[in-house]
Amino acid sequence: MIKNMIIGQSGGPTAVINSSLAGAIEYGLQSEKIGKIYGMLNGIEGLLDNNIVNLTEMFRSLPHELNRLKHSPAMFLGSCRYKLSGEEEEFKKIFKVIDAYNIGYFIYIGGNDSMDTVLKLSDYARENGIDVKVVGIPKTIDNDLVGIDHSPGFGSAAKYIATCVREVAYDTSIYSIKSVHIIEAMGRDAGWLTAASVLARQDNMPAPHLIYLPEVPFSVEQFKEDVKKKLEEYNSVIVVVSEGIKDKNGKYISAKQDKGDDRFGHARLSGTGAYLKSVIENEVGCKVRALEPSVLQRSAGHIASLCDVNEAFNLGSVAVRAAEEGQTGVFSTLRRTSNKPYCVEYLTENVATVANMEKTVPREWINEEGNDVTQEMVTYLRPLIRGVVQTPFRSGLPDYIDIRHLDVKKQRYSD
Amino acid sequence: MIKNMIIGQSGGPTAVINSSLAGAIEYGLQSEKIGKIYGMLNGIEGLLDNNIVNLTEMFRSLPHELNRLKHSPAMFLGSCRYKLSGEEEEFKKIFKVIDAYNIGYFIYIGGNDSMDTVLKLSDYARENGIDVKVVGIPKTIDNDLVGIDHSPGFGSAAKYIATCVREVAYDTSIYSIKSVHIIEAMGRDAGWLTAASVLARQDNMPAPHLIYLPEVPFSVEQFKEDVKKKLEEYNSVIVVVSEGIKDKNGKYISAKQDKGDDRFGHARLSGTGAYLKSVIENEVGCKVRALEPSVLQRSAGHIASLCDVNEAFNLGSVAVRAAEEGQTGVFSTLRRTSNKPYCVEYLTENVATVANMEKTVPREWINEEGNDVTQEMVTYLRPLIRGVVQTPFRSGLPDYIDIRHLDVKKQRYSD
Repeated sequence: MIKNMIIGQSGGPTAVINSSLAGAIEYGLQSEKIGKIYGMLNGIEGLLDNNIVNLTEMFRSLPHELNRLKHSPAMFLGSCRYKLSGEEEEFKKIFKVIDAYNIGYFIYIGGNDSMDTVLKLSDYARENGIDVKVVGIPKTIDNDLVGIDHSPGFGSAAKYIATCVREVAYDTSIYSIKSVHIIEAMGRDAGWLTAASVLARQDNMPAPHLIYLPEVPFSVEQFKEDVKKKLEEYNSVIVVVSEGIKDKNGKYISAKQDKGDDRFGHARLSGTGAYLKSVIENEVGCKVRALEPSVLQRSAGHIASLCDVNEAFNLGSVAVRAAEEGQTGVFSTLRRTSNKPYCVEYLTENVATVANMEKTVPREWINEEGNDVTQEMVTYLRPLIRGVVQTPFRSGLPDYIDIRHLDVKKQRYSD
Repeated sequence: MIKNMIIGQSGGPTAVINSSLAGAIEYGLQSEKIGKIYGMLNGIEGLLDNNIVNLTEMFRSLPHELNRLKHSPAMFLGSCRYKLSGEEEEFKKIFKVIDAYNIGYFIYIGGNDSMDTVLKLSDYARENGIDVKVVGIPKTIDNDLVGIDHSPGFGSAAKYIATCVREVAYDTSIYSIKSVHIIEAMGRDAGWLTAASVLARQDNMPAPHLIYLPEVPFSVEQFKEDVKKKLEEYNSVIVVVSEGIKDKNGKYISAKQDKGDDRFGHARLSGTGAYLKSVIENEVGCKVRALEPSVLQRSAGHIASLCDVNEAFNLGSVAVRAAEEGQTGVFSTLRRTSNKPYCVEYLTENVATVANMEKTVPREWINEEGNDVTQEMVTYLRPLIRGVVQTPFRSGLPDYIDIRHLDVKKQRYSD
């Protein structure tokens, strides 16, 4: 019997979540087992609120838009930060909607929390004899998911950060005065993205000169010494720090600035980089800038990694194929089979192995001093940023797809 | 008689100063009147220190590198912030080096201060009967030069800022909660770059919702009201402010936060955006982020405007041709002859008309409320960001040229 499919996106944006969505839709449109493809607006919240669109109608009449979707950052369907309570009433509400839409395939793109949703829903369906296959598609710029060689979204953010370091290095190299630039990368507890800045170091470019990950306790004293030492050798020193570096007591460095008196009502600093800037300014005394690319690093579709885009797309297809074949409680994943040439194979794994777990950087991939990464890390990272995307441009700007521009109302389900 | 040419770069970086350098070198290599082409390292400072390279040897043996130079940001030859004292001794020192290298053509790429250098040197040469033609090539991301329709470097920075706004807008659109993003653009006294954020507003995208230029006095109270009003209509409000906005007494808004007590040694905020973030957090109370693209906006060669790259290249050629033809004390410039289709013509103008002057945004191109720009501004800006550059990539990263990788020592002049 033909059943319909529903798909949603959840968590924080990346440059390639829509690539996975495009891969899932493309596979679904061609499947003989799958009827209509629905999209939840704002993830599971959209499901609960019956905020659902018909993606089959949307993309069957606009097939070229599927390629634009593949190359558009953020989340076409919108996101949510909704963690299932696990209560019976909530499950009943969800499966009532699933039944109303005759859903047989439930696909969810997201990170750790979303994989928890996949786990809970698949367990509930199984335990209650409901014939719905629930499959996850992984994503996160943080690269902290277990059960996968690297997370879709990470390669593009990595390419963005490495490009920033290179462009900042060119920018600062023009003067013959001493300067320090501190770039703060995302990744609260896992330092993968910070580590990826090392890729800028090709063609004898020494930047970044120092790299600090949250996996190693951070000492402000040691940091000052490290910077001073590098300034002896280089005019312009570029430092990349994770937003989540902590001191030996586990306290975030970014929290250090919060102890000040704010009775004057002036704002407190929020960034780790901004705090370290003040340290260098006050105690080393050269020109210092702190740069926080913030959300730009996760939504820069115009400089996404083609490798990342294609893998995300494939993981979307693989997930729908798995559901179609009857798998449930799994997520699509990839395994690196070779580094030279870089090859991966696609498969599925039990979602229970990834939900609510976190993969941090192994200590042996960080140098002994804790201010750089090792060659193993470089070898691991290098292939992930390869390939140049052909971002569609119009009137000089990236021409991304936007659900608000398609006639969504027409596609809304009504019974 | 064949004379040599020398060229230098000065001031802050842009994405296309090297395009102008490439245009000047290409023209110079083909000229029958021009002998060797020398480059000053770090501008006029390099000239004074005899820190000079032979660009003819460098690029004649590596012709394909000239195209790479055209597409590399920042400054191949390095920069300086050196203002001529105007003293006789300094002039004598400069012209002694010029004589030693048999220079007949002196080309200088830069902003206001550099045009002052061109003016002083050309005046001195003329008054002292020295046969050296001194010609400037304009550049600045700020677009505040007079005597030119728009400055090379501005279009690329404008494209970067507009792209940022679009990508941030996609990033923030995914949640259905209220949020404010404040993007701080460069341009201390001229709001052109901030204004260029308006270009993001194509395809019914409402972002940026508010735009504040330094040309209009900024009221924090009015700002809060503006933001509140926009939040009634939109979930996600994106504001672009110039780093140089000032209150009605002419005091920089960014200076407001400096009044606090810093006896605890914690750092002070430096950014206008960061200050306004605290205002909204404290008094409107929704999620707020401040983004400061900082130097990334001026050195992002990977998303430069092709229109800008080509115009900068042509202005380089035009300047050398003018010098070759015997003009001095001029700079190469462009005039817009048509908007639809967009056309420019190249010419030269007396450098005395631009040196030390500043072109700010006319009040009538800003809306009455002072929180947006008018359609005239959009019409002026639109063509300047057009065209996609084919940035050379290698191993996944932009493959920019770097003088440190060429064998510079060999090219050094020695007598």
